[in-house]
Amino acid sequence: MTHSYEKLTDFTRQVFLHMGCPPADAKLATEVLVAADLRGIDSHGVARLAGYVRLWKAGRINPTPQIKVVHETPSTATVDGDAGLGLVVGPKAMEIAIAKAKAAGSGWVAVRNSNHYGIAGYHAMMALQHDMIGMSMTNASPLVAPTFANERMLGTNPIAVAIPAGSQPPFVADFATTTAANGKLEILQRQEKEAPLGWIQDAQGQPSTNPNELKEGGALLPLGGDREHGSHKGYCLGAIVDIFSAVLSGANYGPWAPPFVSFLPMPDDPVGAGLGHFMGAMRIDGFRPAEEFKQNMDKWIGRFRQTKTTGEAPAVLIPGDPEREMEAERRAHGIPLNDKVEQSLQEVAEEFKLVF
Amino acid sequence: MTHSYEKLTDFTRQVFLHMGCPPADAKLATEVLVAADLRGIDSHGVARLAGYVRLWKAGRINPTPQIKVVHETPSTATVDGDAGLGLVVGPKAMEIAIAKAKAAGSGWVAVRNSNHYGIAGYHAMMALQHDMIGMSMTNASPLVAPTFANERMLGTNPIAVAIPAGSQPPFVADFATTTAANGKLEILQRQEKEAPLGWIQDAQGQPSTNPNELKEGGALLPLGGDREHGSHKGYCLGAIVDIFSAVLSGANYGPWAPPFVSFLPMPDDPVGAGLGHFMGAMRIDGFRPAEEFKQNMDKWIGRFRQTKTTGEAPAVLIPGDPEREMEAERRAHGIPLNDKVEQSLQEVAEEFKLVF
Repeated sequence: MTHSYEKLTDFTRQVFLHMGCPPADAKLATEVLVAADLRGIDSHGVARLAGYVRLWKAGRINPTPQIKVVHETPSTATVDGDAGLGLVVGPKAMEIAIAKAKAAGSGWVAVRNSNHYGIAGYHAMMALQHDMIGMSMTNASPLVAPTFANERMLGTNPIAVAIPAGSQPPFVADFATTTAANGKLEILQRQEKEAPLGWIQDAQGQPSTNPNELKEGGALLPLGGDREHGSHKGYCLGAIVDIFSAVLSGANYGPWAPPFVSFLPMPDDPVGAGLGHFMGAMRIDGFRPAEEFKQNMDKWIGRFRQTKTTGEAPAVLIPGDPEREMEAERRAHGIPLNDKVEQSLQEVAEEFKLVF
Repeated sequence: MTHSYEKLTDFTRQVFLHMGCPPADAKLATEVLVAADLRGIDSHGVARLAGYVRLWKAGRINPTPQIKVVHETPSTATVDGDAGLGLVVGPKAMEIAIAKAKAAGSGWVAVRNSNHYGIAGYHAMMALQHDMIGMSMTNASPLVAPTFANERMLGTNPIAVAIPAGSQPPFVADFATTTAANGKLEILQRQEKEAPLGWIQDAQGQPSTNPNELKEGGALLPLGGDREHGSHKGYCLGAIVDIFSAVLSGANYGPWAPPFVSFLPMPDDPVGAGLGHFMGAMRIDGFRPAEEFKQNMDKWIGRFRQTKTTGEAPAVLIPGDPEREMEAERRAHGIPLNDKVEQSLQEVAEEFKLVF
């Protein structure tokens, strides 16, 4: 089934209102969540709405958080999200990073006591309209085995970097630090197809092509897949995201990161509060005049678009191209949902006495 | 042949003095260069000394640079390296980042008009003694084909992040954003062994296992190796390093980055000045008390050391472990050089009338 952006937005806002979010927060959380569906990152959009509802019912989400700066310098801050929706805490923390960048050239905000914050790219892209570079990362439920490990120690810990250009659209990188994100495995599960080697390992720590391996005690692999192909670098990236997001802020890190699914218990020996994020904003004109920078970004992007290809694809892509094209398509023609997601939204509608 | 750290240091300093570097700069450049040999990153140490000499003879290195801050805010700056050795410009730029972090919580310095700056990790690690997180990255001669590309557009563009701990040694990640760094290919060339698939492609853009492919028009591949294994993420990382180091600073970016080898001509349509770097320092206590952070880093590191392994290796490593162990070993027992490097140093000694 395909639904209009407006319909999904309206329904999602009703759900957040029903959870007790103040209207402005419900609107913000909705915008962040549905941005994932618009941009084609289906695993992070309304597909997770029922999951947020379950976390709220389990008392793990505070719909009326008092978000506070608990520590700061002119260019840094730590924010306590008061167990709020990451979809609300995330953008509010990014606003603080942007305000600090306005005053001090750059702003860096570590966030603790938060929850899943949707797509990393949303937060990073908030900086673009201010002629700033935006960065965003978050830790997440442990699903990833470091190089040589047979244990889930890290989340898929994404990194997003958004860089403004002039006449070209902005450069927007947004990627999990694993070979493949969990959403890609879910697609293969539905299609009953095998996964490429290098994506996952089984419960014994051996390479596997079974996309259901995560349900059977297996783990996702860091970008690179194995030691010979540089998985220690993917492990470094995931670890850096974990430390910046959670050790710097005072959130739970590594295997202590709280699970997204409400049926898994919280770790009984927490090392911090909730999940962690890390946000950054740098004013372009903290380095050189913004117009000069943008002209050079246009030149960078233009030159990379002209790269000779191997023939595998019609052109070399600029990070952000596929998501921007998807957004244009879905704004115009609607957002397709698979049966499982459709059903989960119907169930939420029934329970909350809403129309979907 | 194996040489003591002291001997290599003394010889290298004499060479930089002969090039006309002031004594303090010669000492600093030597420390940065030989740090690579100590830490086992042989491709970036004295193996490159003859290369620096050739660049100097070609007039591409200014031994007495006037390094200047050309633009700044409380937490950001752009530095012009005046075509100096990156081995001198790099640490001086990092000192500026550290000073800004002292005053404003964090410091971020983009550098233009520089040259090859040795190992990224050296600069990042300078922050550790100040209870700061250090970051460092640099662009480099184009050798890497982005996903779907049959053209060398990016350098191996490394990223280093150094994070202090308490009783544990610091976390130090330092890695090229390619599947494998060029130094690994050189080892395979000497051993006449094949490279794993996913490291390189040939001049036609096809996967190859020939470690000599770079000399025959091929290219290194971004971390991930191919699209199915996430090479678009490695390409994103390499691109971010290029943009932060060179577009933000006003250096040459992408395929315009100047070659390290003096026999290749400089691009005749430069888009900036020299090579670029990007340095960052964040005060730990800009986020939470340093002691509290370090206790949690000790806990993070301790927990990761206890990770159950697949049996492939005796333990999961913490980034920085192999290099630290190598440094202890080489400080005690000397630094082995292969015949080619040995000969290149003999030639420099002869030419400069020095003893090696």
